[in-house]
Amino acid sequence: MTQPFSYKLLAQDGAARLGEIATPRGVIRTPAFMPVGTTASVKAVFLDDVKAAGSDIILGNTYHLMLRPGAERIAKLGGLHSFMRWDGPILTDSGGFQVMSLAQLRKLTEKGVTFRSHIDGAMYELTPERSIEVQNLLGSDIQMQFDECTPFPATFDEAESSMRLSLRWAERSLAAFAQYGRPGRALFGIVQGSTFPELRRESAAKLTSMDFHGYSVGGLAVGEGQRAMFDTLDFTTPLLPTNKPRYLMGVGTPADIVGAVERGIDMFDCVMPTRSGRHGQAFTWAGKLNIKNAAHIEDLRPLDETSTCPASRDYSRAYIHHLFRSGEYLAPMILSWANIGFYQELMAAIRKSIAEGTFADVAARVRAVYPSTVE
Amino acid sequence: MTQPFSYKLLAQDGAARLGEIATPRGVIRTPAFMPVGTTASVKAVFLDDVKAAGSDIILGNTYHLMLRPGAERIAKLGGLHSFMRWDGPILTDSGGFQVMSLAQLRKLTEKGVTFRSHIDGAMYELTPERSIEVQNLLGSDIQMQFDECTPFPATFDEAESSMRLSLRWAERSLAAFAQYGRPGRALFGIVQGSTFPELRRESAAKLTSMDFHGYSVGGLAVGEGQRAMFDTLDFTTPLLPTNKPRYLMGVGTPADIVGAVERGIDMFDCVMPTRSGRHGQAFTWAGKLNIKNAAHIEDLRPLDETSTCPASRDYSRAYIHHLFRSGEYLAPMILSWANIGFYQELMAAIRKSIAEGTFADVAARVRAVYPSTVE
Ligand SMILES: [Zn+2]
Ligand SMILES: [Zn+2]
Repeated sequence: MTQPFSYKLLAQDGAARLGEIATPRGVIRTPAFMPVGTTASVKAVFLDDVKAAGSDIILGNTYHLMLRPGAERIAKLGGLHSFMRWDGPILTDSGGFQVMSLAQLRKLTEKGVTFRSHIDGAMYELTPERSIEVQNLLGSDIQMQFDECTPFPATFDEAESSMRLSLRWAERSLAAFAQYGRPGRALFGIVQGSTFPELRRESAAKLTSMDFHGYSVGGLAVGEGQRAMFDTLDFTTPLLPTNKPRYLMGVGTPADIVGAVERGIDMFDCVMPTRSGRHGQAFTWAGKLNIKNAAHIEDLRPLDETSTCPASRDYSRAYIHHLFRSGEYLAPMILSWANIGFYQELMAAIRKSIAEGTFADVAARVRAVYPSTVE
Repeated sequence: MTQPFSYKLLAQDGAARLGEIATPRGVIRTPAFMPVGTTASVKAVFLDDVKAAGSDIILGNTYHLMLRPGAERIAKLGGLHSFMRWDGPILTDSGGFQVMSLAQLRKLTEKGVTFRSHIDGAMYELTPERSIEVQNLLGSDIQMQFDECTPFPATFDEAESSMRLSLRWAERSLAAFAQYGRPGRALFGIVQGSTFPELRRESAAKLTSMDFHGYSVGGLAVGEGQRAMFDTLDFTTPLLPTNKPRYLMGVGTPADIVGAVERGIDMFDCVMPTRSGRHGQAFTWAGKLNIKNAAHIEDLRPLDETSTCPASRDYSRAYIHHLFRSGEYLAPMILSWANIGFYQELMAAIRKSIAEGTFADVAARVRAVYPSTVE
């Protein structure tokens, strides 16, 4: 029998939760950070290093993969796990968010979205049914309902009608999952409602009455600012069942993550470690560091001497600075790896502190060196 | 006492030589291929993987490193080995070739070359004395005399006066090495004379009467074609002492390498494996393969199933094809690594075959799948 998908709450420290998600492809220790592998690659980092850094799960993007190399092709080639050589769990988004931000000539109707590919101009349709079909063709372990990510800011009326559309799409996503899903795979519902408590309540009430395996708090980290994001989490996470995982999509900075963990969130993903790495920004326990800065030109210290990640520990800042100045591939390779390493060290420290009842100490340590802003 | 620099000829198969160069930083098995680390990085490949692929020695470029980050700076930071994290031997060129091909406003006199940096426009001077000083500031284990790489084609008179300038610079390089060198470090002389046997004879006679640790055959792989290169080697390598290593700079394709080994060459360097890797070309035992070709879009075979290199063995062609199409960093990372792996497998096969007296079989196998052209 296939190991079913399940969540176990192991400890709490305030609202912060230590847990484990069991999947047929292995356990995800929560709070978990999922490195983003948009087009079947965590940019500039070997997956063996992503795994060794402590990543239990990575994320793939439905929109990108359905356009290139194509969902049917990936299925034919054996699925996303074997294609990209990652045997742990993979979470996929629904594609909805990226259709609205990347595709051209989008047209949104009750049925779904038609759009023109930003790669080759071909026309595609993405509906709840097709999104779930694609996610199952990829072989995704944790799938997302198709939803509309309500833009920020939105009026109450806009947020309400958008949230209700997402609710109807949630039902259609569930029905499609019953058709395309496989034992052990999970489907998450996405709570919408912008910054309006009344709408979040309606969305959460309806979604938790449906049979989802977990819940995402959607429509956040879209420009509302950290204060509004935390306020929304404050009144939204208590609406979610305690026996299922909670996922905050696209978040965030170290300060965002500790703030969200503090409010009961279990799962995160963000391109920040790899994107920042490509641009010369390193995350360390002493704060963020711009390796391109001339101050590092003769600095023989590693990025972070307390780190166990080879990328943070083994190269001098002077060398990485030189690599960036010289435009060498090795520069983003080292820094992206180091940043994945830092994020996973952060998550490990958070998990340990929840078990020990000292989460506030880790949160304070992070806030002391990281500014409190969302991406 | 420091391990002195020495060369031991272990076996011969025709003119092909199996040998070992001992240095204070380790043994170099010859025939050897040296991956090129121009600006203190073998482009897109981690040095741990370069080493694991079987590389005993890598090359650094004096011209690039003296401009950025600067030779005095690298010395202050502990030398090139610790700067780039490579504890094996490093060979450096003299900078002369790159000054003439990359720098602006070059002016060549008896004393040396003045030029404008292609990076920041600053004026520099490179002389035999400064080249050797720079190479010792870097901490290079095998250094090259400062020479003028005679352009091809050259008239007899041009080739003669250029060769004689290089001879005078050879004497000055040796004197500078006596001043700046350290025990265990080596200095190679460079035989010039273009394609003229008489000039090569004069150059070799003069250089072998000086106390160099090894010899390079210079002025080749500069557009003369494989036939002229081999013809020149045919009459030049017999002029070199058998108890010292022979180095053919900037070569080359697999077919160039077997042809040169066949003519008694021991050491090679070339940017081809990494440059080709960045451009989608893979070297395999079945020949060269363009991974961007649509034929690979659903090809689940690895680059080379006979390879022991993880990069050649563990990823499907379909996946690498997809990475290139998507512009992912991982594409050049995998292919550059795989190509370094192939080149070192080639050298290992060549060395084994010389020991066993079957070099002709390896040469035939390579020629069957690689076209006979220099880079
Ligand atoms: Zn993000
Ligand atoms: Zn070359």
